[in-house]
Amino acid sequence: MKAKVQVFLKPGVLDVQGKAIEGALHGLGFSGVDHVRVGKTIEFDLAASDRGKAEAELKDMCERLLANTVIESYRVEVA
Amino acid sequence: MKAKVQVFLKPGVLDVQGKAIEGALHGLGFSGVDHVRVGKTIEFDLAASDRGKAEAELKDMCERLLANTVIESYRVEVA
Repeated sequence: MKAKVQVFLKPGVLDVQGKAIEGALHGLGFSGVDHVRVGKTIEFDLAASDRGKAEAELKDMCERLLANTVIESYRVEVA
Repeated sequence: MKAKVQVFLKPGVLDVQGKAIEGALHGLGFSGVDHVRVGKTIEFDLAASDRGKAEAELKDMCERLLANTVIESYRVEVA
């Protein structure tokens, strides 16, 4: 199965990378850009028998390694 | 409009961050994980009148700033 994990800073946590990108895009003339947030996407193949088990395993991975849950939130997808 | 840009290393370009995550997940007992790739996701609000124009603008942003097209590929989404 194809697994996809997206990790973003929680709303309210200052996203300095996003602010830098927003400033750079404005500088290039893309003035319609606002509220930029930058996150990580982790994609991989996962050997799992069913979807439910795969999702549970992905959440476990996020809690233990992939996300810092103090400041980051995550979304998991299985396809 | 909500815009989403995903930037990944092209296939064949060594993804050291992905390799590190793969090793760490194996170390934690998630042995079914393979072919880990790590990318960036950039989400923002975009002031654009129609979908086609928004997509064209996003591609322009990727070519000029968001992706290093020598080693990275990108996907754009408008919602």
